[in-house]
Amino acid sequence: MNSSGRPVKIYDTTLRDGTQGEGISFSVTDKLLITQRLDAFGVDYIEGGFPGSNPRDIAYFNEARGLKLQHARLAAFGSTRRAGVKASEDAQLRTLLDSGMPVMTIVGKTWQLHVTEILRTTPEENLAMIEDSVAYLVAQGREVVYDAEHFFDGFKSDPDYAFRVLSAALRGGAGHVTLCDTNGGTMVDDFQRIVAQVVGEFGGDKVGLHCHNDSGLGVALSLAGITAGASMVQGTVNGYGERTGNTNLTTVLPNLFLKMGCTASCAGNLGELRELSLFFDELANLRPDTKAPYVGLSAFAHKGGLHANAAQKVKNSYEHIDPALVGNQTRVLVSDMAGRSSVAMKAKELGYALEEKSAEMKQLIEELKELEFRGYEFEAADASLKLLIAKALGVHRPFYVLEGYRVMIERHEGELFAEATVKVMVNGQPLHTVAECTGPVGALDKALRLALEGIYPELKEMELRDYKVRILESRSGANSRTRVLIESGDARAVWGTVGVSDNIVDASAEALTDAINFKLMLSRGGAK
Amino acid sequence: MNSSGRPVKIYDTTLRDGTQGEGISFSVTDKLLITQRLDAFGVDYIEGGFPGSNPRDIAYFNEARGLKLQHARLAAFGSTRRAGVKASEDAQLRTLLDSGMPVMTIVGKTWQLHVTEILRTTPEENLAMIEDSVAYLVAQGREVVYDAEHFFDGFKSDPDYAFRVLSAALRGGAGHVTLCDTNGGTMVDDFQRIVAQVVGEFGGDKVGLHCHNDSGLGVALSLAGITAGASMVQGTVNGYGERTGNTNLTTVLPNLFLKMGCTASCAGNLGELRELSLFFDELANLRPDTKAPYVGLSAFAHKGGLHANAAQKVKNSYEHIDPALVGNQTRVLVSDMAGRSSVAMKAKELGYALEEKSAEMKQLIEELKELEFRGYEFEAADASLKLLIAKALGVHRPFYVLEGYRVMIERHEGELFAEATVKVMVNGQPLHTVAECTGPVGALDKALRLALEGIYPELKEMELRDYKVRILESRSGANSRTRVLIESGDARAVWGTVGVSDNIVDASAEALTDAINFKLMLSRGGAK
Repeated sequence: MNSSGRPVKIYDTTLRDGTQGEGISFSVTDKLLITQRLDAFGVDYIEGGFPGSNPRDIAYFNEARGLKLQHARLAAFGSTRRAGVKASEDAQLRTLLDSGMPVMTIVGKTWQLHVTEILRTTPEENLAMIEDSVAYLVAQGREVVYDAEHFFDGFKSDPDYAFRVLSAALRGGAGHVTLCDTNGGTMVDDFQRIVAQVVGEFGGDKVGLHCHNDSGLGVALSLAGITAGASMVQGTVNGYGERTGNTNLTTVLPNLFLKMGCTASCAGNLGELRELSLFFDELANLRPDTKAPYVGLSAFAHKGGLHANAAQKVKNSYEHIDPALVGNQTRVLVSDMAGRSSVAMKAKELGYALEEKSAEMKQLIEELKELEFRGYEFEAADASLKLLIAKALGVHRPFYVLEGYRVMIERHEGELFAEATVKVMVNGQPLHTVAECTGPVGALDKALRLALEGIYPELKEMELRDYKVRILESRSGANSRTRVLIESGDARAVWGTVGVSDNIVDASAEALTDAINFKLMLSRGGAK
Repeated sequence: MNSSGRPVKIYDTTLRDGTQGEGISFSVTDKLLITQRLDAFGVDYIEGGFPGSNPRDIAYFNEARGLKLQHARLAAFGSTRRAGVKASEDAQLRTLLDSGMPVMTIVGKTWQLHVTEILRTTPEENLAMIEDSVAYLVAQGREVVYDAEHFFDGFKSDPDYAFRVLSAALRGGAGHVTLCDTNGGTMVDDFQRIVAQVVGEFGGDKVGLHCHNDSGLGVALSLAGITAGASMVQGTVNGYGERTGNTNLTTVLPNLFLKMGCTASCAGNLGELRELSLFFDELANLRPDTKAPYVGLSAFAHKGGLHANAAQKVKNSYEHIDPALVGNQTRVLVSDMAGRSSVAMKAKELGYALEEKSAEMKQLIEELKELEFRGYEFEAADASLKLLIAKALGVHRPFYVLEGYRVMIERHEGELFAEATVKVMVNGQPLHTVAECTGPVGALDKALRLALEGIYPELKEMELRDYKVRILESRSGANSRTRVLIESGDARAVWGTVGVSDNIVDASAEALTDAINFKLMLSRGGAK
């Protein structure tokens, strides 16, 4: 089937199936941020959680009901009613409805092996459970997606029953039936043939796909299913998910839009794809996969002399797409800081014109390259970058200098205790203070404020909003190079600063010092 | 085409194309070790390097000539002769022959765009370059593989010329012609159709495949090509390679043998696949991809309570293959979603039967829930979990107790310094030591070892492999609750431990203490 121009629905399950991945865990706040980001990106459905399985997801839906979304429809996930119970009396369906979401996605059995061995009921009762549950939720005004668990295994063992399962869901009023390759074991040929049979029977408009990467084919299966006529793809950002992960949307989307000519609401935002991928890894506290197709740091990096050279001779010869289409870029040899124009922009935000070809710019770019090599990263630390620019321009006012500090952490007879001593210089005067707190960074922060708030009372308005630690080169063990990112804010602004050191407390001290200096630069000038 | 029972040749290019990957570099000794390992595993061809491109590969081939291999044939990589030069007078072909390898793989152009723009010669001369070069090497008694660079792009632009390229190589006497999807941009349908056309024209016996993962389809393309009748697959262990990497052999092989029924010399050694994968990552100094299909640590890990529970009821329901077939194993992850059955399984790994309905189990589950609520996470910290279980079972031997510690971090006149003092009790005796290091965790680790290595010399075998910090509830600022995960290892095992505290150093101390205790439990018993 020719896919060109065909509309496809994108169904994101990062917040539900994605969180089944090892080491993936999002707080309620994270989940709300992600919901808004996915909506802004333009996905059609966001499956937010499984309210029947844990209180955190219930808390999330309580908050999510208040979100004003532009396009996406929020889905809560659950399962069909229990055997022998009326749908209207099933506690789990009640919890699902209580989420208040417009879309309810319910999973049910397709494979008779599971019907008899896990549900311990009859094939007929299973069909009734599916139809009843869907019909009940539809009667409550919800759009229902039916996820046919183990569809492909079920189909191989009994195609007729698998079709009856889908018929039951559609008779109940399901908006979509999703064919799930639950254990990820299906090969592309089989998958495409089976989807084609389903599409032949029911039409493709209501057929969705849910694949896993256990055979390394999550993306290929999803594309094959669309080729066979299905119209909805479920997946997760960065392929998060149980075992080897779910279908990776950051790979499937560019293939659908750029290679197969499909369309979707988010197709116009494909240029934000790399940024979206990084945002998720940041919240999940995962190292980005540098080799990820389309969005990885290395995806358009050329090392071989042959290719690196040829790429300049014949544009596009060695790149299958223009990297800008997915927000990525070509990298040749060592990382070439996209640099000058963005630095010029930051300077402008500070109120200064920094010429792209000036000597200051050249020196600053050199310095940034050196810092990046050492592990600094300024994407989320624009305040540190602006302080650097102000220094390069000779307009930096040093409101204070942290001359030295000492932090002591002690555990003694079960008591834990942290104390920080700081020595700062303000206008040539030394100030020496000490403070204690639960942890070392808190103690440092308190001691600094104690020293400075008398002179700079506006520091009382400032607070630490976020503190993030990333271990760089962790293979070297406990003395790993550490990057600390601190987000600070007051009533008017939010700013990020960075510190890097082989000592985590020292990296924090650096980011903290920048944060305070930037606040003073905002309040007292220094840069315009 | 039915693939069942079909023999396939496996061609490994980890040592050549794999080393084009960012951050991949092998010494000559590494390359020799890898060669022997691949041979023992049973691959058919090992492409060892590109002698024309660097002296290290020349040195490797000089050594490799002395290797006694059981089965594999070693290949040296190069390119066709230059335009307008006799093959016998081409310096690069001479270097290739000098490698002394039985197989020579030469790459050449298929795409007229490249013939005119990069080689700057005529399409006819390009065909002559291919035929001459192959014929010359064959005349010297070598088996020749012709890699048709950009075959699919070339075919799409001019199928007739692409066929003439293959004909030239085969006329020259090439044993195989490899269809290369050089920039990784081809979709599965197109790929399969084009391979089928080639097979229709030339037969499949001499047709090989070389794919890249730029569209996330490296594996799918290779399988589709075999389905279409090709008989040789090129790839790299763990998918190393330029940009997003080459076809990952650790995924392709189990798919070929377990799913498609193909055969190959290495098929009988599939049970060593995970070990092979880890061996390569170890030599490449790369962190293993835990989500890798078949061979990843998480590939058969189950988190959801639903699945974890069901997996025991219906064997194979949630696993597409028996993990032992690829040398992997089922892992049940403990999380707030799983529970008793997973804890029972962990106890069993320790050698104890912990009944799911016992009082110990009830108490342990309560304790785990409480710890998870406080921010602990045991998925990547099974050693901490096993210590907890041993304590619950009353079989924990406290090899030492960390009574107290003090860590001081000081920055003074530009110098940075960390010092740790620890007091540990071993068999009722206090040991009091002090050590210094760049960072606080390193200093603690050193002081603990100083105290304990005299009594437990096996601690010298143990090293910290990875250190991860996650700020929980980070929006509350610098005193955030912090979770530290430490991965430790010795020659035989790798284990993870966890610590949680409002003080990052204290969380690290906790994870470190568990790591050492677990090592001692492994070496001295305590749990079986």
